[in-house]
Amino acid sequence: MNFDSIVFIVTLFVILPSEAKVLKKTSNTCEDILGDDLIKEIWSYENVKDDILNYVLKGDFKGKTYDELAKFVDKFGARPSGTEVLEKSIDYMIELTKKEGINDIITEEVKVPLWERGEEKITMLEPREKDIALLGLGKSATTPAEGLTGEVVVIRDFEELESTSEDKIKGKIVLYVPVFTRYGETVVYRSQGASKASAKGAIASLVRSITPYSLYTPHTGSQNYADDVVPIPTAAITLEDADLITRMYDKGEKVVLNIKMSSKLDENKISRNTLIDLKGSEHPEKLVIVSGHIDSWDVGQGAMDDGGGMFVSWAAPVILKRLNLTPKRTVRAIFWTAEELGLIGAHAYKEAHINETDNINFIMESDEGTFAPLGLAVSGPQKTRCIVAEILKLFQSINASTLVEEDSPGSDIAIFTGNGIPGASLHNDNGKYFWYHHTEADTMNVENPEELDLGAAFWTAVAYIIADLSIDIPR
Amino acid sequence: MNFDSIVFIVTLFVILPSEAKVLKKTSNTCEDILGDDLIKEIWSYENVKDDILNYVLKGDFKGKTYDELAKFVDKFGARPSGTEVLEKSIDYMIELTKKEGINDIITEEVKVPLWERGEEKITMLEPREKDIALLGLGKSATTPAEGLTGEVVVIRDFEELESTSEDKIKGKIVLYVPVFTRYGETVVYRSQGASKASAKGAIASLVRSITPYSLYTPHTGSQNYADDVVPIPTAAITLEDADLITRMYDKGEKVVLNIKMSSKLDENKISRNTLIDLKGSEHPEKLVIVSGHIDSWDVGQGAMDDGGGMFVSWAAPVILKRLNLTPKRTVRAIFWTAEELGLIGAHAYKEAHINETDNINFIMESDEGTFAPLGLAVSGPQKTRCIVAEILKLFQSINASTLVEEDSPGSDIAIFTGNGIPGASLHNDNGKYFWYHHTEADTMNVENPEELDLGAAFWTAVAYIIADLSIDIPR
Repeated sequence: MNFDSIVFIVTLFVILPSEAKVLKKTSNTCEDILGDDLIKEIWSYENVKDDILNYVLKGDFKGKTYDELAKFVDKFGARPSGTEVLEKSIDYMIELTKKEGINDIITEEVKVPLWERGEEKITMLEPREKDIALLGLGKSATTPAEGLTGEVVVIRDFEELESTSEDKIKGKIVLYVPVFTRYGETVVYRSQGASKASAKGAIASLVRSITPYSLYTPHTGSQNYADDVVPIPTAAITLEDADLITRMYDKGEKVVLNIKMSSKLDENKISRNTLIDLKGSEHPEKLVIVSGHIDSWDVGQGAMDDGGGMFVSWAAPVILKRLNLTPKRTVRAIFWTAEELGLIGAHAYKEAHINETDNINFIMESDEGTFAPLGLAVSGPQKTRCIVAEILKLFQSINASTLVEEDSPGSDIAIFTGNGIPGASLHNDNGKYFWYHHTEADTMNVENPEELDLGAAFWTAVAYIIADLSIDIPR
Repeated sequence: MNFDSIVFIVTLFVILPSEAKVLKKTSNTCEDILGDDLIKEIWSYENVKDDILNYVLKGDFKGKTYDELAKFVDKFGARPSGTEVLEKSIDYMIELTKKEGINDIITEEVKVPLWERGEEKITMLEPREKDIALLGLGKSATTPAEGLTGEVVVIRDFEELESTSEDKIKGKIVLYVPVFTRYGETVVYRSQGASKASAKGAIASLVRSITPYSLYTPHTGSQNYADDVVPIPTAAITLEDADLITRMYDKGEKVVLNIKMSSKLDENKISRNTLIDLKGSEHPEKLVIVSGHIDSWDVGQGAMDDGGGMFVSWAAPVILKRLNLTPKRTVRAIFWTAEELGLIGAHAYKEAHINETDNINFIMESDEGTFAPLGLAVSGPQKTRCIVAEILKLFQSINASTLVEEDSPGSDIAIFTGNGIPGASLHNDNGKYFWYHHTEADTMNVENPEELDLGAAFWTAVAYIIADLSIDIPR
């Protein structure tokens, strides 16, 4: 994948529901578009929906999503792309699914990188000695063993970088201190900062962590070197230290840091996407996909990003199987691999299934948290949105009826939804999502049993209804 | 100081305004008790109060408390008891005050301990390998260089410890996992946990950090070994890891940790309390004290605990001097030293001034955050509370009119207010105080210029009015 395509994907990846516009009320129009029969058909699923909600919220499945997620992340912890622990966690999920009597499970191999973080240490040497917490960014270059020592240049935004002469940057450490606005707007300083700083001669680049809130919490994440620059070491530091250094710098003090970073990169590891099918009764070749990614960053437990999303997607075929609900089309759960280093598993799936793209009726992904579900962020033509909006009305009892319009919802699935395949990502109450994102704090403490139950029930019922409708979802 | 007295003080220290009862409306009674003349006198300060508020909120002092606090904590960082940096920071505060033309500054020497944290590392060895973040507790014993390895016993509360047989604890690592309720209730597991675990034969003790919220944030703090126990290494771990270990333990898994902790203890260092007087015009021997402590834990910047409290107290004589406001009694700002290791500076002051205790007219302290001021937590007989309540009515325009009744408000000053000297601590909007308390996140990012202005203006005006009243504050 070249740099441009990554930039494009990163941009897609970061559009959160809260950043998109809510669907204008077009209920009259939708009524006309859908017609009485289809609306009646959608409402005929009310009892099935209630059965699913009751089973998950009050019945045998109550608490199970949380419990299984906890067992999984407690057993494996972080699951970085390319590691043995990730592969073992994939095997575990397959066994867990087989125990439910579901045997239509396929894994598909994907070539993935392994970037292993080594020792990381930043010491402020001037104006006073202080340890600076950091997390190196994905695939960062290393420093010599004794570290790199350099003076800091504080840069507010790329415009300021552009307008700063090369001799002010050359040989220095660039510290980007963008104030968090929206993730999609701010994250470019993490994903592109090293390249742009290197192009002007910097020896390393640091970025104020991409988060609105911190308890001295560094946030890692992916970044990519442009082809034509020297790969320089790059890391995120906390809001607190970034702001401290900025205050010192703004007073005219010389700030000198020593940066030590080691890591190993192996681009040729093998991982697997996991496909779990609950075969459809009438059109088994047609797919309603529910998905989340199984890999995580190497910090925290990957409980929120994206253990929760994977488990609500796992729950869909499992719950349907348990309730003997077989929709007309196949419900396929996919656990993408190597999302964090650039949607690698999703790209591999797309390529491997390039001739079956027409079979994807609807593609869903949960990768923005599994807090209380609020509805769906949906792409597709107006009729698709009208159908989904009508289905969402069934979920007013759990306050999950909001439809948010997005051109290409999701992160992994954005490479499908961005190309005209209708789909949706889980719209949920994720106001604190970026507090935990890519940090040691991404643990089970973020998760809530009741919210996971709501998410699993909602996800399952929506997938079932779409997979069972008399008509395909329009493109 | 013996262990019992420390326990007593810790208990006092932790009563937060939110945990105390709000004064019942006794306005009729207060009117009777105060009488028309005193009420009229108190209201005669309305213009002075406005002058102070205007000067700090809109005039030359606007933003100064924040700016000076930032300069101070950015320059020195953490200021642990017994260190050179603490002494240098005391010298700095003296110079800063002299620049304001205030020369009545005294320092009084205090013998304090220096506890220097060394390498700290916990590794979970079973059921899987994982680093466990920690912060050793104050004066913790060390481990051998290779660490201590032991199995974990999870203990919910002291009752459970009591009822657990010694052979289940002997040779093990006790992990206390109290759920945070109120600080005063929960902190005993930090302050007394090691002693109680050691008494039953544990080789080390850990405690779930004393906080309601975490982003994988360990919280240090003081603890004390009882005289009759072996001092065992003791540390706080994050909520996340404590809960992870608890889930594993509750499933019957054997959890084995290796704990490495080194540190140095020197009980014979010298520090100083700092006394800054704005001499009274009529009764210079009578004191209205405003105070905060200058030392901090060795993590973070000590901006909240208690840089902010010290700076609003510093601001009181400075603002009065700048506005040429000389009250009848002396306003004395005190920067206590070595609060964090057991109110050592405050005890030394009390002893050194034991014959002048009657001269303390009112003693104030800010050591629970300098978020937006809400009022005061006050001790003293009813007439005292009525006087303060009437004064607080002057601050309705800044929403700082709440009087909270407490028997012994404050931490350092609790050794005075607990003995019948009337006083008050700053009641402020500190709902997140314990998120930052004793962590790397206690930095300038907690502080807010407008809230510090409000705090400094309020603190100064209250101190001035009490110091200038025609009558002494009743005991």
